[in-house]
Amino acid sequence: MADTISFARGAPSLDIVDVDGLRDAATRAFTNDPGGATAYGTSIGYVPLRRWIAEQHAVDEANVLVTNGSMQADAFLFETVVAEGDAVVVEKPTYDRTLLNLRSHGAAVRMVELETDGIDVAELRDLIEGGVTPKLAHVIPNFQNPAGYTLSQAKRGELLTLAAQHGFMIFEDDPYKHIRFSGEDLPTMLSMDEHDSVVYASSFSKTVCPGIRVGYLVGPAELIAKIAKLATNTYISPNMVAQAIVYEFCASGAIDRSIATVKAALAERVATLDAALKEHLPEARYTLPEGGYFMWVELPEGTDVAALFGAAAERGVQFVKGTDFLLEGGENTLRLAYSGVTNDRIDEGIRRLADAYRSVAGAAAAA
Amino acid sequence: MADTISFARGAPSLDIVDVDGLRDAATRAFTNDPGGATAYGTSIGYVPLRRWIAEQHAVDEANVLVTNGSMQADAFLFETVVAEGDAVVVEKPTYDRTLLNLRSHGAAVRMVELETDGIDVAELRDLIEGGVTPKLAHVIPNFQNPAGYTLSQAKRGELLTLAAQHGFMIFEDDPYKHIRFSGEDLPTMLSMDEHDSVVYASSFSKTVCPGIRVGYLVGPAELIAKIAKLATNTYISPNMVAQAIVYEFCASGAIDRSIATVKAALAERVATLDAALKEHLPEARYTLPEGGYFMWVELPEGTDVAALFGAAAERGVQFVKGTDFLLEGGENTLRLAYSGVTNDRIDEGIRRLADAYRSVAGAAAAA
Repeated sequence: MADTISFARGAPSLDIVDVDGLRDAATRAFTNDPGGATAYGTSIGYVPLRRWIAEQHAVDEANVLVTNGSMQADAFLFETVVAEGDAVVVEKPTYDRTLLNLRSHGAAVRMVELETDGIDVAELRDLIEGGVTPKLAHVIPNFQNPAGYTLSQAKRGELLTLAAQHGFMIFEDDPYKHIRFSGEDLPTMLSMDEHDSVVYASSFSKTVCPGIRVGYLVGPAELIAKIAKLATNTYISPNMVAQAIVYEFCASGAIDRSIATVKAALAERVATLDAALKEHLPEARYTLPEGGYFMWVELPEGTDVAALFGAAAERGVQFVKGTDFLLEGGENTLRLAYSGVTNDRIDEGIRRLADAYRSVAGAAAAA
Repeated sequence: MADTISFARGAPSLDIVDVDGLRDAATRAFTNDPGGATAYGTSIGYVPLRRWIAEQHAVDEANVLVTNGSMQADAFLFETVVAEGDAVVVEKPTYDRTLLNLRSHGAAVRMVELETDGIDVAELRDLIEGGVTPKLAHVIPNFQNPAGYTLSQAKRGELLTLAAQHGFMIFEDDPYKHIRFSGEDLPTMLSMDEHDSVVYASSFSKTVCPGIRVGYLVGPAELIAKIAKLATNTYISPNMVAQAIVYEFCASGAIDRSIATVKAALAERVATLDAALKEHLPEARYTLPEGGYFMWVELPEGTDVAALFGAAAERGVQFVKGTDFLLEGGENTLRLAYSGVTNDRIDEGIRRLADAYRSVAGAAAAA
């Protein structure tokens, strides 16, 4: 269908990308630092950007490694830290690519329930007391992918305490932090950490654009140095042109304007989505996200999300099945990404989704 | 030393990088295709660039994968094709990073002598007839790194015949092809291949700039699809901004002007290097390269290149020891990269190198 409305992809629509700002940043990158932008760098990344990131997190530059997107950062971290058979805790549900990546590294993945205020720390404690000490716990603290939920301040502290007690690493995967459009910003676990328990990852995909492929890790200097060596052997250096453009975009303040644009647009979309669901699909249960790209939707028990997926596709609307973010279960759940759908298309998209739901629910009732 | 002259790094000096052309290409990339440049792409790379590369090699787009630099392409290929313990043939000497990368994949690396007209095909045949059939043979056909030698047309054919007979893959690693400043261009083995024996890699590091980190693979569609899947799981997509810039640089013809600039400068540098070696270090033996970045230098038997390296560093001149490109031997050899040294510094660099050589040779004679 030509005018498919896709709630599937966690990516921004083009109207909220500052293309003019990027073009200007590129011009400045080649003018201000032609040598740095065009030459091989080293695997730690473009030096001025690394410094800018270190300042943002109030850490030393030695704690920062800038990579070709944060997925690549994850892959490096897992290759360095996770050995075949190691227990790794993730949230239930969690980002499907993280699941895939961990499993391809041979990790014994343990999912711990994600509540609306974040990972169930009590369940994690029970798991550990039951004899499973994870090598690392992967947590997306803000506006989680796929659920849109945020880890509370109290749980951030509890998680740090648990990590320090039991000697596991918290992998704080935080690309959505700056896209908060309501509620109050919470401190990163990285900033609260007193025992070198946290490795932090983020990216510029949500604040600059995804095609620029710039992500980063912040962590203990020794670990960062180890990963830098692996990165050197993999690709010599990450993309210096792209990182110089991001640096210019950040240093000029364009990034703050870009974030403001994104937040305003996404807040409006969430309101529209909420209204559309209430009107067309009142069976849907969800928690309104305070930021980020995603809303997790639960439909009545017995809904077959695979059938819904097909019926929706026939009607020109796409989403990701909840089952993709889980090892088992979730057949009545789905993820709606509102980042890529402009506000004027949301109501029509939900109308189609509701129509698809009726067709599937009707068929189930008739059977 | 502040004014160190480095013959160490295989990278272009800034004066032969078309910074203005890159800035213009970046402006066009964001103007002509803002959506394609800023969004996530897919792991096959930026579609118009992939098509442009396919046209250059007269292959189908399905045979091409564009990556974050060709080192990353190598890493993907090795991860896909080379299993622990597989025999892999490389040239002796060969690029140190390829050696490292293969060994980290657990390959049983077999070095086959590199002659001035390319790999010793008779030795490779003997090796195979002796029972070692390699999974792949890595060959840098043009202006080899580190030796600067070029594989003859006859040997290209012989290698293809051998590969077809014994069912091994030729990995044709060809980043320097377009940087030929004398002699005649030879066809790629990829273009001569009738049995899907060849996987070809190249990059834009030598024709656009290294900091842009764009490389590519050309090979059988099935293998490319397999690698694309691995690439998706590693980084979702390579750098779309950088690849869109490269595409605009290529499509506009800027790349042809850039190549002409590079070739003219490097031809001049080789002539200067030749004259300087003849004058200051007549003991040096070498074959004048017809293109590329590198010249391989043999000093008299008994020269201790590690000692020379130290003595040279004290005098503000750098190179890479021949031993770095070999599993054993090469103590009297070194690689001079003239790509990064402007013409006006070459004579002084060789003067210092000669002085270092005298100090080391003198000490050895006195010992």
